[in-house]
Amino acid sequence: MRFVIVAGTTRTAAIEGLSAAGADPEAMVHTPAADAELVAYGDVVRAPAVPVSPTGCPTPALVTRAVRELVGFDLLVVDAGLAAPTAAPTVDLGAAPGGDVRDPEPVPAAESVVEAARTLGAALPDDELVVAETVPGGTTTALGVLRALGEPYGVSSSLPENPLALKREVVADGLDASGLEAGDAAGDPVAAVRRMGDPVLAAVAGLVEGAANGDTAVTLAGGTQLVAAAALARHGGTDAPLRLATTPFVAEDDAVELTAPAEALDLDVAVTDPGFDGSDHPAMAAYVRGEAKEGVGMGGALWLADRAAIQLAAVRARLVERYDAVVGRDGP
Amino acid sequence: MRFVIVAGTTRTAAIEGLSAAGADPEAMVHTPAADAELVAYGDVVRAPAVPVSPTGCPTPALVTRAVRELVGFDLLVVDAGLAAPTAAPTVDLGAAPGGDVRDPEPVPAAESVVEAARTLGAALPDDELVVAETVPGGTTTALGVLRALGEPYGVSSSLPENPLALKREVVADGLDASGLEAGDAAGDPVAAVRRMGDPVLAAVAGLVEGAANGDTAVTLAGGTQLVAAAALARHGGTDAPLRLATTPFVAEDDAVELTAPAEALDLDVAVTDPGFDGSDHPAMAAYVRGEAKEGVGMGGALWLADRAAIQLAAVRARLVERYDAVVGRDGP
Repeated sequence: MRFVIVAGTTRTAAIEGLSAAGADPEAMVHTPAADAELVAYGDVVRAPAVPVSPTGCPTPALVTRAVRELVGFDLLVVDAGLAAPTAAPTVDLGAAPGGDVRDPEPVPAAESVVEAARTLGAALPDDELVVAETVPGGTTTALGVLRALGEPYGVSSSLPENPLALKREVVADGLDASGLEAGDAAGDPVAAVRRMGDPVLAAVAGLVEGAANGDTAVTLAGGTQLVAAAALARHGGTDAPLRLATTPFVAEDDAVELTAPAEALDLDVAVTDPGFDGSDHPAMAAYVRGEAKEGVGMGGALWLADRAAIQLAAVRARLVERYDAVVGRDGP
Repeated sequence: MRFVIVAGTTRTAAIEGLSAAGADPEAMVHTPAADAELVAYGDVVRAPAVPVSPTGCPTPALVTRAVRELVGFDLLVVDAGLAAPTAAPTVDLGAAPGGDVRDPEPVPAAESVVEAARTLGAALPDDELVVAETVPGGTTTALGVLRALGEPYGVSSSLPENPLALKREVVADGLDASGLEAGDAAGDPVAAVRRMGDPVLAAVAGLVEGAANGDTAVTLAGGTQLVAAAALARHGGTDAPLRLATTPFVAEDDAVELTAPAEALDLDVAVTDPGFDGSDHPAMAAYVRGEAKEGVGMGGALWLADRAAIQLAAVRARLVERYDAVVGRDGP
């Protein structure tokens, strides 16, 4: 088993009020690079800080790292449009940072990114991949891709109050700029990503296609961004089994209604509860308040821990230890 | 503990008769990329073939991978001038492939590569690094660097008959082209690498300086190329303890006489015998005949296995399994 984190950026994250994957838009540019370092090393290395939301919710990368320390899985970070340097070792797919979803073509090189990712996914010798994402602003581009494909499903948010009206407005502007009506890119995943997506979605879709069609077991580790990636793969003709491993924070989100896309896209859904309820520790309490919810493969990592018969109490203890070491050291 | 493989190239490898790190000069361009993939994945992924010498000796990367499967260490591959694509995740130091040691400046960007590596070595949060190399032709550039620094030590070879006369001639030509007499770069490691080295030596020297001076325990995993890297670090003023972990094939090589540089450069030497004697399996027999000897951190990996109380018989069994899976599958 190999855990793949596809890391990149979209200028969509700079739209005010859309994402909490960083303290502010300037910090968010570093979030994917920092997340990759946290899972690779347990700390930031070249990135300037551990990503926290404006209200102090730490990145879910800490949960994935906590599980990695207990399970010991191999990690592959894919650079799909990073905009800041990272000390995490990466495989580069030649993707540039993504443009604003309201641009006519936010991912002009979508075709080559999908193809490079497909080739990599097909070539990896692993019998199982767990594929995750880190891209601030990614739920909005996910919504854009779903609409372009004609899929009616909703998306989650890293904010406790999902700015759905804003997202719909941004996506409507994006469809206009791209000259698309909803559903115009049905059956054409490359066009959907090129005109309405981000480079991470392009890479995840390609990886999933390349791996799943080569009989590698694929688990999509994440929330509605991974649902959008699954939709891309299904529209591209991939009919291999796919699992979605996510958190209860996504599964119980009224904006998502996960059962509908799971059924329509034939996804076997695994929801693993980390048991954060009742904790007042800053590494966990914000999740219970509805922040972050998912990202950096948190749900997939929890699922792996559970499968390895690791007590979720041990994951929580390790998470607190990691948080105190890398966030708490600077004081609250 | 993190195992760091610094991978790159030097055009010096194209000089006929100098290296056995690949079937021919064309194949050697892929050797470092393939070695990195073998340790990362257990198989080649984007590289065209598992590196074997002209007489069929497989790359020592298979030994390092066998140990990794048993010990489970974290891996960091540093791209220090790769000339072929690799699917191994890498941290890129911005190094170009190295020129011929007979060029006036085979590593024109030596200063920036050393500096980038030093910064990375200082920033890594690990308390222990084991640093290895893969660069065909690297013993010749190691000899070049030793001479430029004024160090009198010999170097090993991946060939059973060390082409020492040829290496000395090539290094003499290199010194001439660089306008140097032996010893002219004493105390100036950047100049030694820029004029007589390769980008891997630049990166290893920088990494070692950055890490060791920050109280990270550093083990140099390899043979005479790592001795040259240690000389660069010592000439740069690093006086932290350094260990050299290598194989008996290097330690017992008359061309090397390891005790002299070990004492002069204050290296604590660990030699771990993999117990290949008496085997007629192609994964091991060529080493006993004097081929390959070291590389891709083989000696350091064996030392780690020994430290983890893993029987070297288990390492050999795993090596045979790996060889049969990735080399033997194509028939002899």
